[in-house]
Amino acid sequence: MTDDFRFTLRARDGGARLGEISTPRGAIRTPAFMPVGTAATVKAMYPGQVRELGADVVLGNVYHLMLRPGAERVAELGGLHKFMNWPHNILTDSGGFQVMSLAKLRKLDENGVTFQSHIDGSRHQLTPERSMEIQRLLGSDIQMQFDECVKLPCSHEEAERAMRLSLRWAERSRKAFGEQPGRACFGIVQGGAERDLRIESARALADMDFGGMAVGGLAVGEPQEVMLAMIETVMPHLPEHKPHYLMGVGTPDDLLQSVKRGIDMFDCVMPTRAGRHGLAYTRWGKLNLKNARHAEDPRPLDPTSSCPAARDYSRAYLHHLVRCQEILGMMLLTWVNLAYYQDLMAGAREAISAGRYDDYLAQVKDNWTRDGEPG
Amino acid sequence: MTDDFRFTLRARDGGARLGEISTPRGAIRTPAFMPVGTAATVKAMYPGQVRELGADVVLGNVYHLMLRPGAERVAELGGLHKFMNWPHNILTDSGGFQVMSLAKLRKLDENGVTFQSHIDGSRHQLTPERSMEIQRLLGSDIQMQFDECVKLPCSHEEAERAMRLSLRWAERSRKAFGEQPGRACFGIVQGGAERDLRIESARALADMDFGGMAVGGLAVGEPQEVMLAMIETVMPHLPEHKPHYLMGVGTPDDLLQSVKRGIDMFDCVMPTRAGRHGLAYTRWGKLNLKNARHAEDPRPLDPTSSCPAARDYSRAYLHHLVRCQEILGMMLLTWVNLAYYQDLMAGAREAISAGRYDDYLAQVKDNWTRDGEPG
Repeated sequence: MTDDFRFTLRARDGGARLGEISTPRGAIRTPAFMPVGTAATVKAMYPGQVRELGADVVLGNVYHLMLRPGAERVAELGGLHKFMNWPHNILTDSGGFQVMSLAKLRKLDENGVTFQSHIDGSRHQLTPERSMEIQRLLGSDIQMQFDECVKLPCSHEEAERAMRLSLRWAERSRKAFGEQPGRACFGIVQGGAERDLRIESARALADMDFGGMAVGGLAVGEPQEVMLAMIETVMPHLPEHKPHYLMGVGTPDDLLQSVKRGIDMFDCVMPTRAGRHGLAYTRWGKLNLKNARHAEDPRPLDPTSSCPAARDYSRAYLHHLVRCQEILGMMLLTWVNLAYYQDLMAGAREAISAGRYDDYLAQVKDNWTRDGEPG
Repeated sequence: MTDDFRFTLRARDGGARLGEISTPRGAIRTPAFMPVGTAATVKAMYPGQVRELGADVVLGNVYHLMLRPGAERVAELGGLHKFMNWPHNILTDSGGFQVMSLAKLRKLDENGVTFQSHIDGSRHQLTPERSMEIQRLLGSDIQMQFDECVKLPCSHEEAERAMRLSLRWAERSRKAFGEQPGRACFGIVQGGAERDLRIESARALADMDFGGMAVGGLAVGEPQEVMLAMIETVMPHLPEHKPHYLMGVGTPDDLLQSVKRGIDMFDCVMPTRAGRHGLAYTRWGKLNLKNARHAEDPRPLDPTSSCPAARDYSRAYLHHLVRCQEILGMMLLTWVNLAYYQDLMAGAREAISAGRYDDYLAQVKDNWTRDGEPG
């Protein structure tokens, strides 16, 4: 515990890093996967369960929370931690990405974005200043700069325009964040799939006083090679004594490949969303429980898993729940998937500490080829 | 624990009874409320949670389970207890009620009912023999006779016809049940809202060798007074050394009034269904969390509740979850409601044991008038 926001690098193994962020709310062991708690809830999970799986931090979405229940209301109720009964660390995104992917009738200018809510059509505005104000009202421990994220592929010109706008918004965001003891504001590297733009963005942000560096605008449609190439391009220009956060990523393989290249933090809806759609991540690969081949399979997903949901229920039962669209099916598979993601990161931390990260990566990937059959 | 199915009456307080059913799977403390686990899941609850709330038995539905995943499949997978990870007692209904309320294109004759599945239109048949076979395949501890349940109001003639058919089906059901050590088959009193028919039905069933007596066909549209009058009419004709089960009932008040009149067991979807629709049962009354008056209320539902969901989350947060149709909202409110129903029965048992059941009933009802305001 500490009164400050602090990042300590504990070990390296090739490009992979073992570290720890400490804040007044506790430690975040890195590499870290942050479950996504969009609307102040990690969907289909009790907060206590999320903690028990080993999550040190969850993500909240400014876009969703500003629409419902509203940042001022959350503040009046004592902040987001208290509101959602999660006393541990919270990172909030800035809303930029969701405005682009969810909102209707967007209008973007130098000042910010005006848009209509996808829920009720009501009109709202987000600027760097308002985004940071919302994140402060929520009481977020790690607050993200407001940025513009473009879909890939896009032209060099378009990527450049959005990157430069994001840099100007980075300065405004950092200024609006001000000084908040024990909390940090992270900058976000943009620049599409253009190496020169990514480098320019990283260098400019490195000169600003951010508590951590995020890489944004990846895993938005491009092949994994492109994403990894961008990480490799950017990494030499990120301050090494600050945490490196790859936003919105990704598959288990994306995570392991990115850790190998120096990424410390991840968030993604994949494990929770997949769980609500009948997909299970296991050590032996990804299974679609909707598939009829599981209908009579008495085996659990993984009898040696750390997660009761993977041990105590047969594949046949999970298949039945998924087919009947039972809420318990979503609860169990979300639990299984978040446990898998947390275990994957715990394994990575252990491997880096022992200097055998490449072996870990190779072994984990080998197991994925088993199509659900325990080895 | 015992190898037999046994019912022991421990105390009386006026008409109210304190008892215990024992089976090889454990004790069922009566008066008992049985959460409904329609399709092999108490919706939005982990089975371990249901047990922790004090439920000794859950109900499974023959109609739902015969359609998905099928009784033979459940049997191959080791029975319903193992399938749904609930090692405690299970009572199954016979399917008669659901065929009438859910299935399409029903055809009823002396032999049984043919119908089309409400899910995929597939054609099925239920007879007393097939219903009992399904319940045996599921491995149910308490199996219900196959019956015909009519909606109220209905004519004396119609009620009489259905009651007499149900009596003939009772004999066939009892015969098909045969001898299953440690398990019981219950008869079901029918007869609509007609006193003479109810008495005739009860007397005829009392002469058959059933392990328990149910009262069916109530809480199907009639006022509470009619339901209670039917219970009072029937009660003198039910064997007192057998458990008395009122099927598909009901509100907290229905339960307490029926316990007062000699009922020992209940099942109802009300607490689980209400929980999925934003309604919370609390000591201080029933609350609709959708209502805007809860939006800024920082108080939990009941800080002194036995249920974490009622203590650790504000009404404002629950309102938010319900408005956003978040799964966690359904999970928390289902938990709250089942806890309330179990606590209500635990309180009834304690009160009967102490000979102060009428005081208990009066006090509980007085609290309900507080509109959610703790007294």
